[in-house]
Order: sequence, then structure tokens, then C-alpha cells
Amino acid sequence: MFTYQYPHPAVTVDCVVFGLNDRELNVLLIQRDLEPHRGSWALPGGFIKMEEDLGAAARRELEEETSVRDLYLEQLYTFGAPDRDPRERVITVAYMAIVNLIEHPATAATDARNAAWFRADDLPKLAFDHAGILAMAMDRLRAKVRYDPIVFEFLPEKFTLREVQNIYEEILGMTLDKRNFRKKLLSTETLARLDEVEMDVAHRAAYL
Amino acid sequence: MFTYQYPHPAVTVDCVVFGLNDRELNVLLIQRDLEPHRGSWALPGGFIKMEEDLGAAARRELEEETSVRDLYLEQLYTFGAPDRDPRERVITVAYMAIVNLIEHPATAATDARNAAWFRADDLPKLAFDHAGILAMAMDRLRAKVRYDPIVFEFLPEKFTLREVQNIYEEILGMTLDKRNFRKKLLSTETLARLDEVEMDVAHRAAYL
Repeated sequence: MFTYQYPHPAVTVDCVVFGLNDRELNVLLIQRDLEPHRGSWALPGGFIKMEEDLGAAARRELEEETSVRDLYLEQLYTFGAPDRDPRERVITVAYMAIVNLIEHPATAATDARNAAWFRADDLPKLAFDHAGILAMAMDRLRAKVRYDPIVFEFLPEKFTLREVQNIYEEILGMTLDKRNFRKKLLSTETLARLDEVEMDVAHRAAYL
Repeated sequence: MFTYQYPHPAVTVDCVVFGLNDRELNVLLIQRDLEPHRGSWALPGGFIKMEEDLGAAARRELEEETSVRDLYLEQLYTFGAPDRDPRERVITVAYMAIVNLIEHPATAATDARNAAWFRADDLPKLAFDHAGILAMAMDRLRAKVRYDPIVFEFLPEKFTLREVQNIYEEILGMTLDKRNFRKKLLSTETLARLDEVEMDVAHRAAYL
């Protein structure tokens, strides 16, 4: 079999999967059961097979390690610092996805001791350069929610503006001015104000 | 030396370098002097070295093949379809840059028979999947100019609105409505209208 006369690195895929519900941003992690970094938490991922596309490898590894499947993974960035793996040169193609937390429970499988959702603001120390990969994915997510109404996919059909603001504040990691936020949100014309109020709130019920 | 017990693909970098002047969009290409696709035109690029970062490999290959250097390369996307190279699995990390055409003449060097700037709307057939890589870079460039005033870096200090519109039309590949374009452009407050007119134009001299 022909091989080019240049050194060949190992190539992996890694997945940053964000899980949203109506108030929390979570990240899907696995606990490694193999060296290096055995026992550490890490992004789900693994080595590509020679006959599969990069995106297919990402979907396969994610399902094998966490049972999470049927989601849209987009390529994020390729990380290739020569020393990012302690053993040999490993280049990793990172993917990201945003899913509804409730629809995607995590269950550990091959190569992973454990798989679980973690609150994005309370993560364990991650193996390899995975903290850096996650940070870039977080930047991409924040850029996305600023121009794309993806957040609404994770809210129930009827919701209050306070609930929308909560989830934006959770993702952006900052407190937003209530008046400016509402003005901007309502100017996008994606929402309709209903003549209903919350039923289970005693004081100052909010419009839906 | 330790190596993971998984098959290792070859890994390359490829560079899409756009060259702009005040009226033309160009793409930097090399003519291959090695198999496969010997004699075909292609994006500058090549195999990574084990000790270098991906971005460093892209800069090195670009300079080796075209003499073009000192530019900002950003990572575009990683292409890894199993059959994209006829010989073995080769994954390529693509980079892109936008430079001033006048400041970056192209000269062929190692592994390349020839290096040259081509008009973006009149390109030769490209080797491998390079037409697809270029198409993605073109999309990224068009998205960029829609929200970022990068085009002005490639215009002289004083210019007419017609000149700006020309270069936008060249990049976007479409004719723009003159009134809407001017309205939008002047509303961005990045420009100052001068009380000067073009001196070498006999009829209807334009404001600068």
C-alpha cells in the first residue's frame, strides 16, 4: 500500500456538546478509562478510522462514549500543537453541537468510565488541551446566540421574557440590562405577546 | 518511540490566499511539479512536519512554494474525505488570508513548477478537492466583507464610492444597487466625504 514519505501523526476527533434547557447551560463530558490522563474528565472523542469521514468519526465516538446521538455536529477548529498529547503527535478535529438537555441523557460506554452533563460554570479539570477547545466552542456559542435565535428552540412554546433573559445571561456569562434586552428582543419580530399571564406566580404575574 | 495503535493518515496544510487591489480579486495558485496531479494547478500547501504547529506549517509551505510571506493566515476548515487523495488517506487543514496584491508578488520555489495570481472569476481546473476548499473560502470572504470593513484596507486613501462599489461587486460576484449601496455605506460612519473631486476625469467628476 502506498504511503507518502512524510511522518504521519495520529488524528482524533473531539466533541463539545452543549446541553440547554430553559435555564441551564451544560457540557457533556466523559471520564477517561484509558491512559494518558486515565481517570480525568475530557471531551468525548477518539481516533478516526481510515475509511470514515471526519464528521462520521465524531458522531461515532460521541455515541460510543456517551450514547448521545442524532444531533447536528459542526466543525469547530483543528488543534495541532506538537505537544498537546504527552505520547506522540496527535491532531484533533473538534466539533460542536447544541442540543436539548432533556432529550439527550448521557450513558457511559466503550473507553469511558463515565459520561455526564456538567454545568458550564462548574466543570472539573479537563485532560489534554480540552479546556482550550471548550473555551473556543464557548466563544462560538456566544457569537451564535448574538445573531441567531437558536435559544428559542430550547424554551417551551410559551415563556416569559424573564425566562429568555435568564438563558441568554447563562450563555453569555453576564448580567443584561432588562430594558435594553427587551427592546432588542421585541424589535426582532420573532415573538408574539400573548394575552395570558403566568398562573403559578402570586406576585406580579408576567406576560407570556 | 510510542505510537498509538490506530492507523495514521498523512496530514497536509493548504492555503487559500486572496489578493485584492482596487478593482480585482485574485487567488494565489501553484502548478504542481510532483505526482499526483503533476502539472495541475492547485492551492499552495504540503505535508506538516512533526515538530511544527499547523499554522507554522501553512506559513512555511506558502513561502516555500510561492515566496509569499508575512501575512495573517486564519484557519478555514479541515477536509478529510477518505478518497480526497488518490494515493492514501490525506487530511488537510485549510487556511485563508486576504492580502494586498501589489505587496505580494508570487515566485515559484520548491515542489512547484510555477506560482501565479489568477483572477477569481477565471481560474484553471484545480487538483484534488481544491475547488471545494476554494469555494468554502470564497463563502467565508463574502460573509466577512458583509460585516467587516476589510475592503478599505485595499483601497488608496482617497477613493470614489464607485471604486468601493466595484470591489464589493467583484468579491460578492453580483451587481449592487447604487443607491442602496451608498446609503448603507455612508450610514456606517467609517467614511468622510472630501470637498475634492477626481482631477483626471472629464465628465461628471465624483466626490472622493
